[in-house]
Amino acid sequence: MAVYTHLGAEQLAGLIGEFDVGALRSAKGIAEGVQNSNWLIETTGHDGAGARFILTMYEERTEVSELPFFLGLMDHLSARGCPVPATIHDRAGAAFRRLDGKPVALIEFLSGVSVSEPTAGQARAVGEALARVHLAGQDFAMRRANNLGPEGWRRLIDGCGPGGLDGIDPALGALVGAELADLLAQWPADLPGSVIHADLFPDNVLMIDDTVCGLIDFYFACTDIIAYDLAVTHAAWCFDATGTRFAPDLSAALLAGYEAVRLLSPAERSALPLLARGAAMRFLASRAYDWLHTPSDAFVTRKDPLAFARRLSFYRDNPGVFA
Amino acid sequence: MAVYTHLGAEQLAGLIGEFDVGALRSAKGIAEGVQNSNWLIETTGHDGAGARFILTMYEERTEVSELPFFLGLMDHLSARGCPVPATIHDRAGAAFRRLDGKPVALIEFLSGVSVSEPTAGQARAVGEALARVHLAGQDFAMRRANNLGPEGWRRLIDGCGPGGLDGIDPALGALVGAELADLLAQWPADLPGSVIHADLFPDNVLMIDDTVCGLIDFYFACTDIIAYDLAVTHAAWCFDATGTRFAPDLSAALLAGYEAVRLLSPAERSALPLLARGAAMRFLASRAYDWLHTPSDAFVTRKDPLAFARRLSFYRDNPGVFA
Repeated sequence: MAVYTHLGAEQLAGLIGEFDVGALRSAKGIAEGVQNSNWLIETTGHDGAGARFILTMYEERTEVSELPFFLGLMDHLSARGCPVPATIHDRAGAAFRRLDGKPVALIEFLSGVSVSEPTAGQARAVGEALARVHLAGQDFAMRRANNLGPEGWRRLIDGCGPGGLDGIDPALGALVGAELADLLAQWPADLPGSVIHADLFPDNVLMIDDTVCGLIDFYFACTDIIAYDLAVTHAAWCFDATGTRFAPDLSAALLAGYEAVRLLSPAERSALPLLARGAAMRFLASRAYDWLHTPSDAFVTRKDPLAFARRLSFYRDNPGVFA
Repeated sequence: MAVYTHLGAEQLAGLIGEFDVGALRSAKGIAEGVQNSNWLIETTGHDGAGARFILTMYEERTEVSELPFFLGLMDHLSARGCPVPATIHDRAGAAFRRLDGKPVALIEFLSGVSVSEPTAGQARAVGEALARVHLAGQDFAMRRANNLGPEGWRRLIDGCGPGGLDGIDPALGALVGAELADLLAQWPADLPGSVIHADLFPDNVLMIDDTVCGLIDFYFACTDIIAYDLAVTHAAWCFDATGTRFAPDLSAALLAGYEAVRLLSPAERSALPLLARGAAMRFLASRAYDWLHTPSDAFVTRKDPLAFARRLSFYRDNPGVFA
């Protein structure tokens, strides 16, 4: 959560002038995104009635070469009716520009708030929205490898160093060692693939009541196993924040919502327990790596890897939740 | 610039429900304010057409006992046509509520951006707006002492400790010593007083082109010498950020704009050079104190005290700029 870059009003007004969106009326730096800076922008709009946008400046961690994939995907899904913000192209047709040497994109503003304590109705709506993304993504032509797939988990875990995991918790090294070996040996190669969001936590879903108004932050999106995306979403939505308490009602609602739009094949359904262990491992691995490589006094809040170690144990011990 | 507190969507929706402003539709933590947390809030509004507000949560450094003054002043000025955000009172009529034990106020959203490189037209508009605040504030009944007046500067300078100032710059101790003695000896007691903003930097003015749309951040407002507020505004607007380059065109425009609305008395005008030295001392003192008491690796950006030492020297050497 940060605004890394200061942009003066004159710079912002000049930038907005490159788009056909009216004149700048307001700009507030907003505390969203961990890899980029964001502003909530208001302009006069076409008709003077006002329009709002999110301006995103991509900081160093974002690969510019990947922006066409991320922004193209958002446009693709938006055009197919998914509640995904479209990018506003500039007068020359470009999806992003540069300011102070950094890429910037102007993105549609969508209403809604990120829920902290989802209800079953909300989990169901998220399942439906995710399935619609999977259907709409079928004919998206671009591809991007998932660098946080099984090999990525192994790389991150190796990067934790000998004894690193046990320094976080004495039982963590054994859990991760056994599970990672299993996952690498058994990870399916024959399930249907497509473009997936890969990070659909409540933070990345804007809702009003039980309606999904916006799916945002596609910067982990990639081409991978479709049902793995459902597993990630399951791990993200169906537990309390500490990963201690599983919520069977949210789980049932999420799966029912998903299947109301896109039926899982028998092979996908029977793979879900394994895919969910993989989903838990993915966030466990990145959080453990960040935990060990982020100074404890850094401004960035470190996220507890154990919240996903608990999910991993739960999925290992309870394959029946997907039956 | 920070959001210190996380508020869940459910908490926010509950809070918004205590006001007659429609239902919550969006909430973004914004990177404004150094003493409090702020969210840009969108609701359905009365007619469903949407309405926007700033939600401010006052963190520990704000005295709750002073909120009625600050919020009451904003309402007073807004009611008299000044471009100042009014506070939205809750259904019970209260100007602020409590959430998680902290005071929170819902405040009108005003458009406009804070300029970084003001033009003469903008400086003139700010002068006019400041004079209107001074006229409209005449009948504001509440009083608040300025704890950053001359005695406050002395307290802050004393708090820098022996040799502290010279550790910032070898010439700083001598400059401050001589000027502070002069200011304390000569500070006027007989100039017209009223409620003043006392911190009207470009950051605290929202503009569209040459129009002032919003004067914000009244949390240093107090009862003090009216012309001192003009001197503060002069020090804030008529130099580059480093205090190295004085902008005579902005100075002339600011003063002309002010006097187009409220004429300075001869006594006020002849006091301006001294008041401007005081204004420079006020920010020099607080910045020097913060510089010496903020760890260099803290998240908060330390502001350079020398930017106001340069202004102080300039005003000492050039009393003719107010002639």
